[in-house]
This record gives sequence, C-alpha cells and structure tokens, in this order.
Amino acid sequence: MVVILKPHPDQKKVDQLAESFRSLGFSIHYSEGEHTIIMGLVGDTSRVDINTIAANEIVDRVQRISQPYKAANRRFHPQDTVIDVAGRKIGGGAFSVIAGPCSVESEEQIICVAEAIKASGAQFLRGGAFKPRTSPYAFQGLEADGLKLLLEAKKATGLPIVTEIMSQTHIDLFADVDVIQVGARNMQNFQLLKELGHSKKPILLKRGLANTIEELLMSAEYIMAGGNPNVILCERGIRTFETSMRNTPDLAAIPMIKHQSHLPVVFDPSHATGIPWMVEPLTKAALALGADGVMIEVHNNPGAALCDGAQSLNFEQFAQVMDTVKQRAPQEGKAL
Amino acid sequence: MVVILKPHPDQKKVDQLAESFRSLGFSIHYSEGEHTIIMGLVGDTSRVDINTIAANEIVDRVQRISQPYKAANRRFHPQDTVIDVAGRKIGGGAFSVIAGPCSVESEEQIICVAEAIKASGAQFLRGGAFKPRTSPYAFQGLEADGLKLLLEAKKATGLPIVTEIMSQTHIDLFADVDVIQVGARNMQNFQLLKELGHSKKPILLKRGLANTIEELLMSAEYIMAGGNPNVILCERGIRTFETSMRNTPDLAAIPMIKHQSHLPVVFDPSHATGIPWMVEPLTKAALALGADGVMIEVHNNPGAALCDGAQSLNFEQFAQVMDTVKQRAPQEGKAL
Amino acid sequence: MVVILKPHPDQKKVDQLAESFRSLGFSIHYSEGEHTIIMGLVGDTSRVDINTIAANEIVDRVQRISQPYKAANRRFHPQDTVIDVAGRKIGGGAFSVIAGPCSVESEEQIICVAEAIKASGAQFLRGGAFKPRTSPYAFQGLEADGLKLLLEAKKATGLPIVTEIMSQTHIDLFADVDVIQVGARNMQNFQLLKELGHSKKPILLKRGLANTIEELLMSAEYIMAGGNPNVILCERGIRTFETSMRNTPDLAAIPMIKHQSHLPVVFDPSHATGIPWMVEPLTKAALALGADGVMIEVHNNPGAALCDGAQSLNFEQFAQVMDTVKQRAPQEGKAL
Amino acid sequence: MVVILKPHPDQKKVDQLAESFRSLGFSIHYSEGEHTIIMGLVGDTSRVDINTIAANEIVDRVQRISQPYKAANRRFHPQDTVIDVAGRKIGGGAFSVIAGPCSVESEEQIICVAEAIKASGAQFLRGGAFKPRTSPYAFQGLEADGLKLLLEAKKATGLPIVTEIMSQTHIDLFADVDVIQVGARNMQNFQLLKELGHSKKPILLKRGLANTIEELLMSAEYIMAGGNPNVILCERGIRTFETSMRNTPDLAAIPMIKHQSHLPVVFDPSHATGIPWMVEPLTKAALALGADGVMIEVHNNPGAALCDGAQSLNFEQFAQVMDTVKQRAPQEGKAL
Repeated sequence: MVVILKPHPDQKKVDQLAESFRSLGFSIHYSEGEHTIIMGLVGDTSRVDINTIAANEIVDRVQRISQPYKAANRRFHPQDTVIDVAGRKIGGGAFSVIAGPCSVESEEQIICVAEAIKASGAQFLRGGAFKPRTSPYAFQGLEADGLKLLLEAKKATGLPIVTEIMSQTHIDLFADVDVIQVGARNMQNFQLLKELGHSKKPILLKRGLANTIEELLMSAEYIMAGGNPNVILCERGIRTFETSMRNTPDLAAIPMIKHQSHLPVVFDPSHATGIPWMVEPLTKAALALGADGVMIEVHNNPGAALCDGAQSLNFEQFAQVMDTVKQRAPQEGKAL
Repeated sequence: MVVILKPHPDQKKVDQLAESFRSLGFSIHYSEGEHTIIMGLVGDTSRVDINTIAANEIVDRVQRISQPYKAANRRFHPQDTVIDVAGRKIGGGAFSVIAGPCSVESEEQIICVAEAIKASGAQFLRGGAFKPRTSPYAFQGLEADGLKLLLEAKKATGLPIVTEIMSQTHIDLFADVDVIQVGARNMQNFQLLKELGHSKKPILLKRGLANTIEELLMSAEYIMAGGNPNVILCERGIRTFETSMRNTPDLAAIPMIKHQSHLPVVFDPSHATGIPWMVEPLTKAALALGADGVMIEVHNNPGAALCDGAQSLNFEQFAQVMDTVKQRAPQEGKAL
Repeated sequence: MVVILKPHPDQKKVDQLAESFRSLGFSIHYSEGEHTIIMGLVGDTSRVDINTIAANEIVDRVQRISQPYKAANRRFHPQDTVIDVAGRKIGGGAFSVIAGPCSVESEEQIICVAEAIKASGAQFLRGGAFKPRTSPYAFQGLEADGLKLLLEAKKATGLPIVTEIMSQTHIDLFADVDVIQVGARNMQNFQLLKELGHSKKPILLKRGLANTIEELLMSAEYIMAGGNPNVILCERGIRTFETSMRNTPDLAAIPMIKHQSHLPVVFDPSHATGIPWMVEPLTKAALALGADGVMIEVHNNPGAALCDGAQSLNFEQFAQVMDTVKQRAPQEGKAL
Repeated sequence: MVVILKPHPDQKKVDQLAESFRSLGFSIHYSEGEHTIIMGLVGDTSRVDINTIAANEIVDRVQRISQPYKAANRRFHPQDTVIDVAGRKIGGGAFSVIAGPCSVESEEQIICVAEAIKASGAQFLRGGAFKPRTSPYAFQGLEADGLKLLLEAKKATGLPIVTEIMSQTHIDLFADVDVIQVGARNMQNFQLLKELGHSKKPILLKRGLANTIEELLMSAEYIMAGGNPNVILCERGIRTFETSMRNTPDLAAIPMIKHQSHLPVVFDPSHATGIPWMVEPLTKAALALGADGVMIEVHNNPGAALCDGAQSLNFEQFAQVMDTVKQRAPQEGKAL
C-alpha cells in the first residue's frame, strides 16, 4: 500500500502517522520527491481500510498495491477449485450446462423442460421460484411451491437443481436445492452472503450489473470467509451506454477472473444479451475463453412464458446449441 | 405501448396476437408501413410485461409509451408529498439537513456529533449501525448496539434518527428509528422493499450506483404498492468512467425526479464525491435544483473514523456549510 | 417513425403537424389512447431529423422504428461485402491477420517486424506513422518519414500496409498505403470521413471508445454515401466502469454488427485489453464469433517500444497466436 | 511515479531498469515488501510514457502520482486565467452568457436571434456554420456562407461570435471569428488542436462525451503547448447508462476542473440535457458551482429549426433565464 502525502506536511504529523502504521504491524519505506513524500507500507494490508488512512489531514491519496481478497485469490491457491454438486463436478475439466426456464410455472412445464434439456445433454436444471422483478406488478414467481416443483423435476430426471434465493429468511426452504443462486441485484446483499457463508451448499454468485471484477471477488470472499469454499462465479453482462442488446456481455471477464481467482466461472448468454440467436455464438466464445459452463434459458413455449420469454430458447434451438457444445468442448480440453 | 411486428408476418398470427391483447382489455390501432406493421395498444399497460410480448415469434420490438409506475407518478398525484417525521416535515417547503457519522462508534462519539450538528442547525441525525462494506474484513458496524446508541443520542438532543437497514430480519430492531434508510446496494432487494411496504415508517430510498431514475421510481413503487406512501428518494452519485471523484454526482436527476414524481428528493454530496471540499458547492447546487434536503457525513475526528473518514466533514466545516444553507434556502423558497 | 403527442393537444396544431408530414411524403396512421395520441409515419424516414420533430410544441417524444443507415445496412444488401486489398480479400471466407508495431521507429525495426509476422503467417502489416497521443509531450510518430519506411517494408516483404490517418490534409501522403485506418478518436471526425468517401481506398474504421454500434454504422455510412463502398469495421474495446483492463472488449458487438451490416468486421485484442496474455484467448473468441480478422500489436522488443509496448507481443508470442489461428480458422469456415 | 515490480525479479534486471531511470534524470527510492518491490521515481515525470515502462518484463504496474499536464495545471499557475475576447472578459469575475441557434439558417434568422439575445443581456452570439451531424443525410450547415452571416450579425449587434471549427483546413475562414469552438467529437482531434495552438485566438474546448477531466485538460495542454494560452473549457454532459436526458450533465466537473486548472469553465445546459425546461435550473446550479458562464441554444422558432430545435429556448424562455442569471450572478461574486 502506498500513501502519498500532501505537499510540505508538518514533520510531527508525519511521525505520528508513521507511528500509527507501525503499531498496526507495518514497516514503512519512504520515497521523497520534489513535491511529494510517499510512504510504502509493507505487511498484510488486506484488512486495512483505505478511506480511514485517506482521511488523515496530511494524506493526499492512498493506492493499494496488492488485492484485498485472500480466500478467492489464485495467488494463494493456484489450483483450480472443483466443486462437487450431487456427484457432478463444476470446474476443472468439466463443462457444465445449466438450463431451464426463467420461472417455474407448473409441474407439467418444469418436468417437460427438464426432460427436454436432459435429452439434449444439459447436466443441471435451473428455474426461478422466487423472481426479482423490477415492477411490483409483474409475476413474482411461485415461491415455495415453485421450489417443490423443481424437486419434483429433479426426482423425475435426476438433474440437480439451481435456483435463486432472494432473502436469508428463505434458507431453510432451500435445504434440498443443489446450487443456490445469488442474483445480480443481490451481489452486494452482504447479510445474505454472510448467511450463505455458514452453509456448505454450492453458491452460484452472479456479477452485479455495474460491479467490477474485484467487487465480485470481494463478494465471493464474504461467502468464503464465513467458511463456505463452494462458490461458482457467473458473468451475465454489464450495464453500459450500448443499447443494441439488453446488457453488454463482458466475455473478457472470463479469462480475467480465472487469472485472478481459482473459482469456477460460468457465463449466462441469455441474460447478457436478451436475444435468442446470440446464445449459440456467445456459448462458442465462452468455451474458447475457458469458461467452466454456461447457463441458458430454455422454455417449452417462449411466446407464452410468464417472464423473460423473449430471451428463451425453445427445445429445438437448445438442442442445436448442445450439439455445438458437444463438438467444441473436447477441443478446449473440457468434458461434458 | 407500441408493438412493432417483423416484416411480412403471417396474418393468422397477427389476428391471434390482436385477440390476446383484446382479451387483456386493450383496444388496438394499426399503422401499416412499407416494411412494418405497428400495433398501438390503448389501455393501462403498467402491469404488462414487455418481454412476454417481445417473445412472440412475429414481434420485432415493443416500446413503452407511458411510465410503468403509478403510485410514485406525478401525473396521477400532482401535489408534492410531504412526509411527517416525528413532527418535522420532509418535502414541500422544508429543506431537511440530515447529518452524522458514517458509523456509530461509541456513546460519547454519537452524542458529541449529535450535539454539534444540532447546534449548527441540522434537523436529523444519521449514523450507521449496520454497515454494508465491500470487504468482509472491514468494520461491519456496532449493529443492534449501534441502534441503541442512536436512540440515546436522540434522547439527548431530540433529533430524529435516520439509519440503514440491511435485512428484513432486522425490522423489529428498527421499531424506534424515525426514518429507515435503504442503501444503494439494496435498492433492488425486493424482499426488503416488500417488507418495508407493510410498515408505515418513512423510508429513505437511495438510488443504486448504476440504476436509472425509472428503476429508482419502480423500487419506490414496490414500497408504495405495499401500502406505505412515505418514501423519500436520495440521489447519491452514479458509476461512470470518470475517476476524479468516488462517483459522478447526478445533480440533474434532482429536477428530473421531481418532474416525474411527487416524492421528496434529498441529495448526498458526501457519498456522491467522497471529497469533503465538494460538499459545500454541491449543497448549494442541490438547493438551486430544488432538492428537499441533503445528507452529509460529519465526524468528530475524521482522521480517526472507523469508516469513510476521508469524506466526512469536521464540526467547523459542517457549521460553515450550514451557514450557507441558512442563507440560501429562503431564496429557493425553502425553510429549514 | 412513431410520434407521441403530449396529452390533449390543440386539434388545429395536430392538423398542421400532420400536413407537414404529408408534405414530406409520409402517410400517417393514428393511434389514440386515453391519454395519448400516437402518429405513425410511413415512408423513408432515414433522412428525417428526430430532433426537429421533437421540437414541435405538441410533440412529447419521437421514436425511430427503422435504422437510419441504408448503404451499410444488411437489410438492403444481404450479401457479405468482400474487399480487395492489393489482391487479397478481406471479408467473406477470409480471416485476415493485421500485425505490427504501434509505431514505426526505424527502417530496421519495421522491416524486422514485417519479416517476422510474415514468417508467422500474417497477411497485412500495420504500423503507426501519425500517432494520436493523449499527451502533447509524448512521441507523435515519424509522420511522413514513417509512411516511407512502411512502404520500404512492403517492398521487402510484399505485405500490404495498414496505417492511421489523422487529418484530411494528409490524404495525398497516403496514396500508396493499402488500407487507411481511421482511429477511435476520429470516428466522428466527419470532415475526414467525407474526404475518405471521395477516395476508393479501403478504409478501416475503428469504433470510438464510447460510441454505439449504430453510431459506428452511421460513420461508415458517411464514407459510403460519398461513394466509397470499401469500409472495414473494427471493434477495439469500449469505455466502462471496469478497471482490470484498459478497455472493455465488446466481443458480442462482432456478431451484432454482422447481423446489422454486410461490412467486414475485425477485432483488435491489443487495444481492447492492453494486456499481452489476453490476445490469444480473445483471438480465439473473435474467431468463434465470426470476425473477419484480427489486428494485433507485435514488436521486436516490447520493453523498448516508443509507444504502447506494454500491450505488444514479441515474435514468439505472436507465432504462437498464429498457430492457434491456423488451427482454428478452418473450423469456422475461414481461410487464412 | 511509482513502479511496482513483479514478485521475485531478477536483480540484474532491476539494476538495469534503475540505471535507465537514472539516465532519464530521475532519482529512485526503493520500498521492499514481502512480495513486492516498489520503485519511487523522483523528478519531472510529465513527459514519461507509462506504457513504455509497464512493458518492461519485470514491471507489474506503474502508477502516476502527479498530473501529466503542466500549462493547464493550477498548481503551477494559481491565478485564474482571464481571457480577453474583443474587449470582453471571460473568466475571473465575469459570468459570460453565450447564446444563439444550433445552426445559422439565414441572414434574417441570425440577426433576429442576435438582437433578441442581446436585448435579454447575452454577451456572445453562438451559431453553427459547420455542423457535426451523426447522419450524412442531415443538414450539414451553411458552412462558409454561415460564417459570413454570423459576421453580419456581429456587425448589426456588436456581439462577438463563437462558432465551431471541424477541420484545420478551415482555419483561414475563421480569421474574423472571435472564439473558435472545438466540439465534443473533435476533443481528441490532435491535428486540429496542434493547429489551434499556433493561433492566438480564444478556443472554446468542449469535453468529449466519454472523456475524463484529465483527458480534457490534456487536450487543453495540446493547444497551450503550441503557444496559445487562451483556452476556455466547456462541460456539456457525458454518456452514461441513464436515458431520461440526452446526456448526463456532469455538473460536479465544474468545481473539480476549477480546482485542478486555472482556465475558465463554461457549462452548456442545452446539449447536456436536450430538454428546454432543464436550462434554467441547471444554469442556477452552474452559477452556484462557480462556472464562468453558460452556453445556451436559443431559436426564433424552435419548432421549425433545421437542427436540434427540440432543445432550443424561444426568446421568451431565454429572457426568463437571463432574469434569473442577472439576479443570481452578483451573489456568486460574478458580474455580467
């Protein structure tokens, strides 16, 4: 950590500041320029609050040199993390396809979708029971009943379940769910993250719409610091000025996250674009970039979906994407 | 709502779509161009899901003409909402100054700050008990003890309390708090918003870092649709490419929100910039733009604050801002 | 084009507006809602200025339904454009690799780089003679001398030359250049675009840092409207809030641009990220997304480059990227 | 400047790097941490290219401590710059109102507007002769004829002229113009900036849509480094995700630019919002924030303007804004 002082500071105050750093266990190296004194702090700065130091009256700016996350950091954990989900692996050499409707709508619907995606080769079933909707007047999901229907679909097909949690008060309801998803809007719902840290369940953590990669890793760190190492990260598009797609897919985040962290990374082309024909090319790109999986919206009848039908694939379109995945995954060294 | 069809649609499918719109109670006007058929839907479209319509195979795009929020909409409620907080008014002709430290740190600290800001003329005390921190290793607030200390400070000074909630499981703890704040990161924590809709307490709802004004109003709509009309909106800076300040203050959002909604709007220059010397000029600008108040971080000893000291004013700096407010508010037709 | 009127407009003014639309050759369809009248304009609206209509006192908003570009639009030109550059093809079934240093530094340097990239399989040599630098104190390029050295390198290797123009006053100097590049900062230098429209030379047009895909296509339209159909588009990263890379590569723009336009699209992984190890994975992704080529910075000694060395590959790294390209291009149906 | 090395660098290479810094005239201070060596460079780093250093194989990152601009920097020139334009002052204690139509359309129009704005108290006439339009099919301005009409309007009213240049080949045409405007899209047209640096004419430099404050100041530096100190900066809104206004006005940039630079700053509420009713509140805010002036679009008949009518004020609306300015400027210590 580098602390840049304001020009011509009072020497007494410099000494006091230095003393306070030493009392926190840091050693200090000085660099004095014409106009500027710089203090380099040596030690573990991951627990230091930059803003507290910046508030000192003689400090101009503080710059962090090393990353503020530890548990999620590849530097301290070079091997890829592989997560076991009901006997299937996510991460390492696996390419995981998670598919299903935006919302669970009925028993017939979710079982029908589960069977279709299984037949095409998907390994996990996703479906929303609790739905985060911008409008209070929009369909909010079947809630607890939706979870039950997902478990019926699991019983019928053997596919493990991935579904979103919207409140820590619901954690008990998710006891039989295989992977708990934290949505983009809750990426910094820290109370929820803390609670999930006390669980051992795999957590699929989606990047917030306008959150940096570092912030995503800090949110993973919340879960891991609580004792749960089973975190899967998900890139799902960021908010920019561009309007031709729903969001701007940050595909380059896939190799960058894998460079900085050992956690598995999946990509969601459906939410990232909102456009069905983009799912296949973006899935190919995600594979080429080293993603550990994709998450795709599939619906039995997209035109009649209760939510987000516009971005869902029908069964035929999904089967075609799966053909592409089956052909391409091996050449990236991934097994389905 | 305008539904633009793809070129050369099957006439039978157009008729089916039209029938489905009529069954929802809409009347339809057609506009046929060379390449395009446009259907104009007439009726209350605020409860219609654009994406569901967009998923229809003959639909190219759907564009909303009227706003999707009702309760928060000035069109249906032209008068300014004025909110009563412990006998004080927020909105209408009042200019409310909410001040205090980022975090409650101790009884001495919070009472000392409360007395100082009261002496300078602030009408509300803010202070964080539950703190949303990016890092799990940073100070997380005194939590329930912090709320007790805030109530001590209220007893000592008579200042109503504004403090942030981070989980709907804490609502009972906030029973004696005067204004419950929803932070930027929780602006779309819809479960929390729903619970707050069942309360009658004034809610101060902060705009998310990358949320549009429309999304902010939709989140207000969540609270209001639940039965709680007492929502105060807060602009606190948005995330852009610019790096000279912590965030980019969206000052023009103040008149735009007031144009679209009847709810009171306050501005937070401390979080919007992270720079103490910016608080005074931005407070002047907020006044000139019609804001109903400001929210300012003040600390007894910014250099030693446990969080966000870098952006806090000391007592002297705050007193100077208040002098400016007292001088300027009357010429904007506002009373302190 | 859809014109939404303000509530309860004066009927006389509606008639006048309608008359003015008819005089421009449009027919009009009305859609009257409870609160709103919508006028649908039928006819060629590509030459209509939305803002002029929006300025009418009874108009609330105007929304364009069809795209404002014609010459660059795939709807009116479904076949891929293939551009001939000194006997080589860009677009269609070709995958073009354009490589070379940020700046031409000396005859030895540029010939040495040209030979190395040719040996690895690149088909075009890039190199900056006129350099757009943020700082007036930074190296500005060898200018006219740099162009001469590029032509020497072409003579030595046979590789066609791609180099950036910064002013329409330099067009004569570029007479022997094979592809003239317009940089991101000049994407909306409309005087320059107009001049290049009078040329027949292939133009490589880079997307501006914060320009939409539609704006990129409108800038291509400027060149094409002047009579020059030979435009190659280049995605090179956009400016967002994310800081882990120099820019955010908008890889999904590749299939989206190709969906909307028939022009060839190349991708520049070097500028998009500023990080050498990202070039290979992003090149693979660009191939998977249907790009017609890539543009890569290569330097004989990146650590000693006069500009942008940090993002340049050395010869060995580039050779490895080319091995990947040679292996992958055929499976995307592309020939080198 | 702080150079952060990669972990465990080869000592010989560290010595070579240090030697190369010393040969450029820097002295070096080392700070060695557990994992990291940091080199602090002491000396004038404004001419150093960060990317060249970052390209060194043992370097991880480089961070600039001091600002890369000199001539525009308030640190080296603490007094406000005051610019003389035909006997009137811009900057210092003056508040300058520049008003007029987006485009010059005819002699009658421009003289009529000039007389009206003069009667209301504006001190400068703006009007576009060369117009940067996104579409090649939109009206491009009257060009040289437009400049002549502006000079007619100056003769008729005595108001100095502000008008935009789009190409350095036009500089001679602008010989009698009082202030040459560089538009947002040309803010980094460095050839144009260099040419304007050889002039002594006042230049009004508009911030690019997605350019940082530092980049704006670097572009000012280009003009100043060429020998022309007469630069006026203009904030005109930035591009963000928000859609309720044409751009997001970055009002806080006004005090931030004035903090970092001694150059005058004007604000353009018309382009920043595209909404006529926003001009008055934003003008009040700009005054409160210390702006040295505003630039406002005014048209004799906004509904019939050839360009950007939607954002223009009519004469009555402008007169009302001027009443506000006349009342408020004195209390900010500014004279009209």
